[in-house]
Amino acid sequence: MHARNKHKQQRNVRIRGTGAYLPSQIVTAEQLDEKLNKPQGWVYKKSGVKIRHYAAGESASVMGAKAAFAALEDAGLEMDDMDCIICANAIPEQLIPCTAALIQDEMWAGESGIPCFDINTTCLSFLAALDLVSYMIEAGRYDKVLLVSPEIASSGLNDKHPESATLFGDGAAAVIVGRSGEDEGSAIIASRMETYGSGRELSEIRGGGSGLPSTQYGAANAEQYLFAMQGEALFRKTSKLLPNFIQRLFQEADIDMSELKLVVPHQGSALAMRLLQKKLGIAPEQFMNIIENHGNMIAASLPMGIHLAVQQGRLQRGDRFALIGISAGISLGGMIIEY
Amino acid sequence: MHARNKHKQQRNVRIRGTGAYLPSQIVTAEQLDEKLNKPQGWVYKKSGVKIRHYAAGESASVMGAKAAFAALEDAGLEMDDMDCIICANAIPEQLIPCTAALIQDEMWAGESGIPCFDINTTCLSFLAALDLVSYMIEAGRYDKVLLVSPEIASSGLNDKHPESATLFGDGAAAVIVGRSGEDEGSAIIASRMETYGSGRELSEIRGGGSGLPSTQYGAANAEQYLFAMQGEALFRKTSKLLPNFIQRLFQEADIDMSELKLVVPHQGSALAMRLLQKKLGIAPEQFMNIIENHGNMIAASLPMGIHLAVQQGRLQRGDRFALIGISAGISLGGMIIEY
Repeated sequence: MHARNKHKQQRNVRIRGTGAYLPSQIVTAEQLDEKLNKPQGWVYKKSGVKIRHYAAGESASVMGAKAAFAALEDAGLEMDDMDCIICANAIPEQLIPCTAALIQDEMWAGESGIPCFDINTTCLSFLAALDLVSYMIEAGRYDKVLLVSPEIASSGLNDKHPESATLFGDGAAAVIVGRSGEDEGSAIIASRMETYGSGRELSEIRGGGSGLPSTQYGAANAEQYLFAMQGEALFRKTSKLLPNFIQRLFQEADIDMSELKLVVPHQGSALAMRLLQKKLGIAPEQFMNIIENHGNMIAASLPMGIHLAVQQGRLQRGDRFALIGISAGISLGGMIIEY
Repeated sequence: MHARNKHKQQRNVRIRGTGAYLPSQIVTAEQLDEKLNKPQGWVYKKSGVKIRHYAAGESASVMGAKAAFAALEDAGLEMDDMDCIICANAIPEQLIPCTAALIQDEMWAGESGIPCFDINTTCLSFLAALDLVSYMIEAGRYDKVLLVSPEIASSGLNDKHPESATLFGDGAAAVIVGRSGEDEGSAIIASRMETYGSGRELSEIRGGGSGLPSTQYGAANAEQYLFAMQGEALFRKTSKLLPNFIQRLFQEADIDMSELKLVVPHQGSALAMRLLQKKLGIAPEQFMNIIENHGNMIAASLPMGIHLAVQQGRLQRGDRFALIGISAGISLGGMIIEY
């Protein structure tokens, strides 16, 4: 039996459908070995990523729209049923307007009036958006909400830094969230986020915004417009913060790791995930690892993990699972959900 | 007497403090006449903007931090009291990470763990962020939240389009929002947003994101990375949508325009504001017009309007006022608040 409002911050919302879209261009580890002048096998060994998809002409909004249509179909709902569209990602398609409005238009709903906005906290954007909007659903402001996370990571990679350039892939995932019915136990049981801005330089794309506008781009500063990661320092900082963060999250949820059917982590890197699994004592069958076929898809990784877990039958109604991740910022995020 | 929960979507939150920061460089209409090769008086006549501030080395996060410190002081609160930091603006400082994390770090709170994320729906970002987070406050998830809107519009203006280039100014405004006390009537009475993505091209900066990355910037496509507005089409479309939107907002709030002490509009343009005032029958003393000394500061305009209204004594505790605006997207947004 499901005890309603057992947890102080429980929100009775339910994932009603999920969908995904992967762009058509598949790039293998071997192809990247060649492109980056590395010995055969280097990229897979370093990154743990066998294949990743790169957008080949598809825009983020087109990818997002395709994932969203799939999620609507999965939920048995129409666009008309949606009360709000949130694009939860790191890299906008344009500087103005927000990507959610572009997705709305790509879904032939450009005259619908459905409110659109973007929420961004890099790799944790989906988690933050789900967390925020669940309060609006719980309060009855919105009944059903479309969350979309399309990412074109390949637009900002720096081939001179193969350690990070080989990690990422493009893709989009979408989730329809709505209020749980009276006889449905689905809920967000607890969620938590912590940001440590002192780590702002550990993972960044410095250019492209108001600080270093696109209009100042040139040969001399080209690398500033590409992704840069201080992998070792990032790892040191987050390793120190993660155990306490996880403890606080599980305390709030009043739950043990052993009670979870699954942990869906952000697919930061194969190394980061191995350490997360080991540090938190997560059994292999409890751990959703999709990095080998997708790479790190920034904010799309978490909803893609949920989507594939549901598709593969690894998440059933009534199962409890966790979302856990680390993002640029740097931020730590976690959520305990009853699916 | 204040009737609690009179309105279905009422949230008992209170603006506890406001603050602003204007960059030091002041640019007059006359200076722009000269820069843009226009006859003396042209810029002021066209834009209605006498002076605007341009950032001169200040970053968005530094501007945001200064506005936020002022808001904290105004509220009699410390950074330690904040449960969340939201940057609500259109133009991020960097593509990664989110601007809120940069602001947190600029406020010497980079080790605080206070959660940070960005919400973006261009000129209505502040309204959307206040709307969203009010549900978290109402539900007890967060007690006090820092909303910051720093904008450096000048980083994306196109001097070849003087009609839009002369409209904008830079600046930052911040608001501390918290739960209303038992004896405090402050509340958000109603709020509403509608997005029409079919108007996505009416107001945009196409480049800088994943669609047209900074790394493709060059002499041939330079204008694509600057602000472009189809003023007349935008005006036609929004004129058609606005009356019904306003009617729905006021119906939800169960309130008449005559009961409002003040309307704080987004400072889109002097023309747009004159028409808003006329169309909605807003008396001059009810209308917060700050465009002459600030220009359109994108998402910073709405919180700056609140800040100046409070400072000038035009908003007192117990007064009811409205936020109303139109943003790229295009979106319409409105909120009725008891201050």
